[in-house]
Amino acid sequence: MNSYRKELWFNVPSRRAFIKITPDVEECVKESGVREGLVLCNAMHITASVFINDDEAGLHHDYDIWLEKLAPHEPLSQYRHNVGEDNADAHMKRQIMGREVVVAITNGKLDLGPWEQIFYGEFDGRRKKRVLVKIIGE
Amino acid sequence: MNSYRKELWFNVPSRRAFIKITPDVEECVKESGVREGLVLCNAMHITASVFINDDEAGLHHDYDIWLEKLAPHEPLSQYRHNVGEDNADAHMKRQIMGREVVVAITNGKLDLGPWEQIFYGEFDGRRKKRVLVKIIGE
Amino acid sequence: MNSYRKELWFNVPSRRAFIKITPDVEECVKESGVREGLVLCNAMHITASVFINDDEAGLHHDYDIWLEKLAPHEPLSQYRHNVGEDNADAHMKRQIMGREVVVAITNGKLDLGPWEQIFYGEFDGRRKKRVLVKIIGE
Repeated sequence: MNSYRKELWFNVPSRRAFIKITPDVEECVKESGVREGLVLCNAMHITASVFINDDEAGLHHDYDIWLEKLAPHEPLSQYRHNVGEDNADAHMKRQIMGREVVVAITNGKLDLGPWEQIFYGEFDGRRKKRVLVKIIGE
Repeated sequence: MNSYRKELWFNVPSRRAFIKITPDVEECVKESGVREGLVLCNAMHITASVFINDDEAGLHHDYDIWLEKLAPHEPLSQYRHNVGEDNADAHMKRQIMGREVVVAITNGKLDLGPWEQIFYGEFDGRRKKRVLVKIIGE
Repeated sequence: MNSYRKELWFNVPSRRAFIKITPDVEECVKESGVREGLVLCNAMHITASVFINDDEAGLHHDYDIWLEKLAPHEPLSQYRHNVGEDNADAHMKRQIMGREVVVAITNGKLDLGPWEQIFYGEFDGRRKKRVLVKIIGE
């Protein structure tokens, strides 16, 4: 069994953003030399997500509005977590979008459906944060 | 390390449905010959889910009502994604229910709790779609 | 490839609670002897979660209020599942928080970000329930 580990770093200038990372993860798979296995791709921060969905700007706008409706940023005072913090909503948005994805590797490539793209979802940006890519297989 | 891959295909006649796939995944585990390992089971489409919950018709009805409340299908015009599409809500419903499950294999069997059943969740049906089953282990 | 399996048992006296299990999972990793691999940690019950987020009491209070807003316990009669049951809301809360986490093992340790902690999320307690820890790797 082989294993591989890499961190992907981000510094998103806005509070929220969705960034496509499929090419970065594909590169990791290539570097790992693994032909058959699994890749775990997870946010290492608790106000961010890794998720799989469509690479479509309209949908990303819709997600942003929708998440804000389900877990509003303001008023800040509605959350007990917001004592010296203002990111309680980000901890909730991330639970809806999820922390991680696990993707199959088949014949040395990410085994994704036709429209599946991997995204980093930032909900409390404006600082350096990272994603872990861990691969096991043969 | 052994690996195994299979696609399960669906063509749901309605827009939304929940279909139990535990027996199909159990069959895959058997075919794989893996005694100890992990099985990844994920929707290959971004308007569908694989999730684990109860095999109970009342609950599935409740899920349908609840998801419609959290991410309503109509009015279509509330979503920017709905330009030549009408399935923005399906992309949201699937994030709540999740893309994938990872299940342990122990002694050659799915290592599930007493009420755990694996489901395919369709949120934009009436066409052919599929689930990936990937197994690694020994 | 090595594999390891352990069940963690809980008997939460209240209906809902969040319990930190990072030390228990770390102990499993140690016992497994696995240096590089993956650990799957999942609720074996369908009204409970395993998730990763912050070890902060204010946030846990906020999660409880927020989940109750998204999937209210009462009125019981709003859910068809509640025939001889009163836990339909718990099946929904668990879908938002998720069933499982997959965590990388690197150099014999859980490969977590600085604030990542693993929690058992109970949404229908007052009885014995369990979490599965399954490790594969080398």
